[in-house]
Amino acid sequence: MSDCSLCKVPTLPILWSGHNFRIVLVTDQNIKGYLRLELLEHVSEIHQLSESIRQQMNLLLHIIEISLVNIFHPDKINIASLGNMTPHVHWHIVSRYKQDNFFPDSIWSNPARNNRFENTQEEISNLKHQLTSMIKQQDAEQAFDS
Amino acid sequence: MSDCSLCKVPTLPILWSGHNFRIVLVTDQNIKGYLRLELLEHVSEIHQLSESIRQQMNLLLHIIEISLVNIFHPDKINIASLGNMTPHVHWHIVSRYKQDNFFPDSIWSNPARNNRFENTQEEISNLKHQLTSMIKQQDAEQAFDS
Repeated sequence: MSDCSLCKVPTLPILWSGHNFRIVLVTDQNIKGYLRLELLEHVSEIHQLSESIRQQMNLLLHIIEISLVNIFHPDKINIASLGNMTPHVHWHIVSRYKQDNFFPDSIWSNPARNNRFENTQEEISNLKHQLTSMIKQQDAEQAFDS
Repeated sequence: MSDCSLCKVPTLPILWSGHNFRIVLVTDQNIKGYLRLELLEHVSEIHQLSESIRQQMNLLLHIIEISLVNIFHPDKINIASLGNMTPHVHWHIVSRYKQDNFFPDSIWSNPARNNRFENTQEEISNLKHQLTSMIKQQDAEQAFDS
């Protein structure tokens, strides 16, 4: 699938990568605390995944959500799997703030404001540490395949 | 939480209701095959749910996705938990078609077209039957609490 952007090596920072998924920090959209969980294999829809891969995916989504809450203290978490333009399983997990550029609308709506938001190096480093250590703990507890 | 619209009895058709969740057919947005999975209890974020309720939620999301694919044969499935305006756990599970009013953008983006789409009575009846029977089967297999 050479024309699928998610089948290529991402240009955005990879915070964690396992056998089946990777977690990428979305830094190009003026939103703080925005991660993407990307399946490594090219599969269009979630229901096409095996039960074991789906369970891994759900566990990673849970770990990502907790990590974002712990580090970014957002007003709301948004989670979405759309993929209309890129039909390759991936999730957007987004920290939302009442002051962000889109609130209370979705990040795919027209922006209401046009302010600049960036993750600090400390936030990125804490996020990477938290994700890695939570996933490692699951590895030990559940023989998580990553 | 009297000012939370999801804490009220929905005005949209309820296709299934259990102890913890209900499945509602979204009929007021000119989109075919659009369901909402709503937690009955007022909780803001998914990570605040118990592991058992999260597992039920994930299983229901899977059943909903399969049911929509079987009955509506969409070009893509979109799944999202936003709740910025209504911070009460609920998921949008949406059948997307290349000809729908928003494709390839999200259903929260500006519409590209303005056509009328409605579920047929047969589709609604098949959907209700499929959801109910898949959930009942899980009940039997996994003592699903609904």
